[in-house]
Amino acid sequence: MYELGVVYRNIQRTDAGTADALARFGSATVHEAMGRVGLMKPYMRPIYAGAQVSGTAVTVLLQPGDNWMLHVAAEQIRPGDIVVAACITDNTDGFFGDLLATSFMARGARALVIDAGVRDVKTLGEMGFPVWSRAISSKGTVKATLGSVNIPVVCAGALVNPGDVVVADDDGVVCVPRAMAGKALEAATAREANEADKRARLASGVLGLDMYKMREPLEKAGLRYID
Amino acid sequence: MYELGVVYRNIQRTDAGTADALARFGSATVHEAMGRVGLMKPYMRPIYAGAQVSGTAVTVLLQPGDNWMLHVAAEQIRPGDIVVAACITDNTDGFFGDLLATSFMARGARALVIDAGVRDVKTLGEMGFPVWSRAISSKGTVKATLGSVNIPVVCAGALVNPGDVVVADDDGVVCVPRAMAGKALEAATAREANEADKRARLASGVLGLDMYKMREPLEKAGLRYID
Amino acid sequence: MYELGVVYRNIQRTDAGTADALARFGSATVHEAMGRVGLMKPYMRPIYAGAQVSGTAVTVLLQPGDNWMLHVAAEQIRPGDIVVAACITDNTDGFFGDLLATSFMARGARALVIDAGVRDVKTLGEMGFPVWSRAISSKGTVKATLGSVNIPVVCAGALVNPGDVVVADDDGVVCVPRAMAGKALEAATAREANEADKRARLASGVLGLDMYKMREPLEKAGLRYID
Amino acid sequence: MYELGVVYRNIQRTDAGTADALARFGSATVHEAMGRVGLMKPYMRPIYAGAQVSGTAVTVLLQPGDNWMLHVAAEQIRPGDIVVAACITDNTDGFFGDLLATSFMARGARALVIDAGVRDVKTLGEMGFPVWSRAISSKGTVKATLGSVNIPVVCAGALVNPGDVVVADDDGVVCVPRAMAGKALEAATAREANEADKRARLASGVLGLDMYKMREPLEKAGLRYID
Amino acid sequence: MYELGVVYRNIQRTDAGTADALARFGSATVHEAMGRVGLMKPYMRPIYAGAQVSGTAVTVLLQPGDNWMLHVAAEQIRPGDIVVAACITDNTDGFFGDLLATSFMARGARALVIDAGVRDVKTLGEMGFPVWSRAISSKGTVKATLGSVNIPVVCAGALVNPGDVVVADDDGVVCVPRAMAGKALEAATAREANEADKRARLASGVLGLDMYKMREPLEKAGLRYID
Amino acid sequence: MYELGVVYRNIQRTDAGTADALARFGSATVHEAMGRVGLMKPYMRPIYAGAQVSGTAVTVLLQPGDNWMLHVAAEQIRPGDIVVAACITDNTDGFFGDLLATSFMARGARALVIDAGVRDVKTLGEMGFPVWSRAISSKGTVKATLGSVNIPVVCAGALVNPGDVVVADDDGVVCVPRAMAGKALEAATAREANEADKRARLASGVLGLDMYKMREPLEKAGLRYID
Repeated sequence: MYELGVVYRNIQRTDAGTADALARFGSATVHEAMGRVGLMKPYMRPIYAGAQVSGTAVTVLLQPGDNWMLHVAAEQIRPGDIVVAACITDNTDGFFGDLLATSFMARGARALVIDAGVRDVKTLGEMGFPVWSRAISSKGTVKATLGSVNIPVVCAGALVNPGDVVVADDDGVVCVPRAMAGKALEAATAREANEADKRARLASGVLGLDMYKMREPLEKAGLRYID
Repeated sequence: MYELGVVYRNIQRTDAGTADALARFGSATVHEAMGRVGLMKPYMRPIYAGAQVSGTAVTVLLQPGDNWMLHVAAEQIRPGDIVVAACITDNTDGFFGDLLATSFMARGARALVIDAGVRDVKTLGEMGFPVWSRAISSKGTVKATLGSVNIPVVCAGALVNPGDVVVADDDGVVCVPRAMAGKALEAATAREANEADKRARLASGVLGLDMYKMREPLEKAGLRYID
Repeated sequence: MYELGVVYRNIQRTDAGTADALARFGSATVHEAMGRVGLMKPYMRPIYAGAQVSGTAVTVLLQPGDNWMLHVAAEQIRPGDIVVAACITDNTDGFFGDLLATSFMARGARALVIDAGVRDVKTLGEMGFPVWSRAISSKGTVKATLGSVNIPVVCAGALVNPGDVVVADDDGVVCVPRAMAGKALEAATAREANEADKRARLASGVLGLDMYKMREPLEKAGLRYID
Repeated sequence: MYELGVVYRNIQRTDAGTADALARFGSATVHEAMGRVGLMKPYMRPIYAGAQVSGTAVTVLLQPGDNWMLHVAAEQIRPGDIVVAACITDNTDGFFGDLLATSFMARGARALVIDAGVRDVKTLGEMGFPVWSRAISSKGTVKATLGSVNIPVVCAGALVNPGDVVVADDDGVVCVPRAMAGKALEAATAREANEADKRARLASGVLGLDMYKMREPLEKAGLRYID
Repeated sequence: MYELGVVYRNIQRTDAGTADALARFGSATVHEAMGRVGLMKPYMRPIYAGAQVSGTAVTVLLQPGDNWMLHVAAEQIRPGDIVVAACITDNTDGFFGDLLATSFMARGARALVIDAGVRDVKTLGEMGFPVWSRAISSKGTVKATLGSVNIPVVCAGALVNPGDVVVADDDGVVCVPRAMAGKALEAATAREANEADKRARLASGVLGLDMYKMREPLEKAGLRYID
Repeated sequence: MYELGVVYRNIQRTDAGTADALARFGSATVHEAMGRVGLMKPYMRPIYAGAQVSGTAVTVLLQPGDNWMLHVAAEQIRPGDIVVAACITDNTDGFFGDLLATSFMARGARALVIDAGVRDVKTLGEMGFPVWSRAISSKGTVKATLGSVNIPVVCAGALVNPGDVVVADDDGVVCVPRAMAGKALEAATAREANEADKRARLASGVLGLDMYKMREPLEKAGLRYID
């Protein structure tokens, strides 16, 4: 349930070292490290391939067809932040373009994650400002109705609190709650170490069936081989 | 971010008098009374027309194609509750049918709100057990993987905490946080009183343009009449 | 391309006799009578089954999440009109409910066709005010940004000019341009006369293959029967 | 892979006694009885609530916007059949209306299952001819391009061979292969006997947790209760 | 409402100088310059990134699964045209591939905008022929039923008259009516001049809140800052 | 109708020469060569542009949110195979990532076609392992419930038998039944030879109207040219 018309100026951001370190693991590993939770829905897609970022969330709640709050949010951005924008109702208008991106970059923002549309995507790519969105649309917006900044928001099905860590790449977007960020970083590190070895064994022809010892549970579950 | 594999047994339910009183206002009025927030997405539809309920939320987090946690949730139901079930990924399988409904009714549940599919809808209608869901599907589910009961869930885009009030009718589903339920009831009552008079005036031919004094702001906004 | 911020007060409505007479043929027959054109997309559904209406269009262009123009449109309604509302971008909010319906009925409107959402659908059913919409949603709207009234609009994929005839029933919604309404009525009348006889023959066991003389063209097209 | 331009006249229908007997179990029970397989996707919805049928499949492959093959199929219908129509590409046009329904009924068809649109739904309801479809649309179709009749088709994600049994109700549509129909009937009968007892116990307050002996596997899976 | 079976040979194209000059502004700026109208829906996507074009519209109305009219349209193309193809019902088949593109290019067409599917997209990219479409699909089409060429069409929600200017880029597609093209060019030019300065100021750290003087209206609207 | 819990080890693969030779024609030409059938739905998209492959199908039936059977399938892969995975209900989870891809490549697989989601798409691109899927998602899966390997499956609307040829490129995915592969190869070869000449004529300015002799049938169909 959303509080409208408010801007929280003092939010508790996740420690920068932790927030920054999560980027290199990517959304899939971080989500696994947290126990398979925290993901936004897969309709959230990057506007260009290859970007991989993490940062602390500045949250925004938007009204449909109205990007006023993105301007309000710009002032709350600190270096290392990722702006996470939800809309109070499904809407694909182009809430964000190259001018706002210029402003966000000047404030130190690393990316935008928005459950709505964006535009000027060619220029955004040239500027190197990554965006994950539900749509791309030329449609402009008005500045007439209040939403909020830095309240907890539901963005693409995931609850995001201001100051949480957001990790995004070509696979999607995951939100790591501030209180869990340290543990998630540890778990992701452990998981990754593990993966290099697994990859080598699988590349050499070892089957997952054997490496993960699946044959017995499969048999117990009743799997039958027919020649 | 979800905690998996847990059941919270002691939740703080909204006071029953307040929770019950909200039903008669319906989802639209309650959502307006809260300042136009709290709604689930409009893909949540009743399986039969005409039901209008309110109650306290017992929340469930489901895994795709797996209804194990609904059985776990049944034990946590108290008279006056509405079960609110989210799924960790979009899924339309039939997680719920007449047997679970029989059990839920025996425990005193008033309704199910589920961001997934249900089945046996004809029988559910005959039993008078209302359900709001994203889909109707014969597809059965397994019982293999843990979710959780009575953790905060995002259901159809709305954050629902256990013990919150849920109001549902033909227009949709709204969640009223426990801390706001008293105020929401007051505001809804005030709003409704107001509506009877408005309706009478509009029925007599008075225009909303005049009743809401819109002509001046429309002119200021630049509206032009052309004959 | 839309002209914003204008209300055309003097529109040329299709002759009432013609507009009224089209209702009984229903949307499918009228669309066939016009040569299989004029339909809105099939996501436009009635909020209750069984209504079948025709009337002259008063058109409205809405902004997303903003129902201001419906109040402006109310004043332009004359008995026998159907309000046709398009939205400048896809939006499912509840733009219309029982209060506006009371006002529309007081002005003589027969129905609303809206490429967006509506609410209070139970009450609308009790009032007997039919609506065809893309969604049902409790979500309220603001009154902040201008659209237009009585300009040509694209509603659910169909171009509707003010004064055109709109025919709607359980099968969907069709728009008949004013200049074609007379011919469409004639063609629909002829077509229907025709159908009673066809129905009797088909009911007696005659096959469409024979009645429509399809066997030869099917053979020419290369259809092969295999025993 | 479809063979186009052919009509198989001699198909092997499932024994009528078996085909008829499956109706009363409904789609959910029959699908469970077969091991949770055979369902069409849940976008297939009945045009009116309450119908529950079974019958032997006469299959049709349609071209988009072209209902020629439904006329060809009519001749192949025998009493007790259900026509199952797939379209070679997604299409929501109204391929079927009251005239074709009159013809199908005269031939003894019990229902139509069509992965496309239908029209005249009000009349179809009055005639008592049930249809499961992906859409309702006034849009008429042409008769220009060949499809096929009584070839294996994929309808709404399910493979249907001519002569298979189709069971449909408010929950959806399931296809039972001819070779499995006898077994499916037995299993459904056994399953249903079972359900009456379960329902009584659940109604008396016994929990599924105990009735299905879930407490131990849940504990093994690691479920924790928190007070 | 569509007229079927006609080809208008003499259409009034927007002056070439104006039509050509609009390309460099892109769809977002042109749409803003016209007052935020004229856009196609955002499901229209380019088959490859980076193309930015404008040209005069040759319009086509297609039947589902039938690309006959694209061949008829080819003859009507003049250098500088963009073909805009609508389909009378939603359809994703591959209506257009490298052979038609070869023919269109030979006639001087600059692009295709089609509310349906296309194929051979790799080759189209190599040929440098840009297409905006709702889908990519290998599915071939027939040549059996008439549509029309150079009638007004509704394409992806936008009304396009033959001779209008179409502007398309990575953000989407906008249609500029012939009568407005001159004004739109002026407004776009003015708007762009304006943007360079804004961008510089935002890059230097000035906030949109100050540059656009939003602080006072935000306060009036009731925005509260909480520390 | 699916058989669950089985792995067929001995499947009859299409002759490798034929299977391999089909790749260069691409999905559109092969589908045309078979008479316009065999295509998967167009929501199946490549995770990166430019790949064009053919191979023999190893089929997999998955349960929602459960990738156990992909590990079982790995053992059945032989060089030249393409794994075709269907899911028993719509699901977009990330069933497949770089580890499974490493294993599949080690076994000689050429590609994965999956009617569900995949992850690690950046790494998959770097590895050069092409995937066609309905979604990209970081969401991990469990290993708890049996599906099957090498049974006939319906994948994205197309029936695929183990050993059939699958051809995939930027336009989509087509399945060629084993029994038809030889003929399809011949027809595709003939068709392609044909195309080079057509392309040259169209490039020289000849119209399809003349090259395909469409003017007469168009006139017969009633096409009118208006000056």
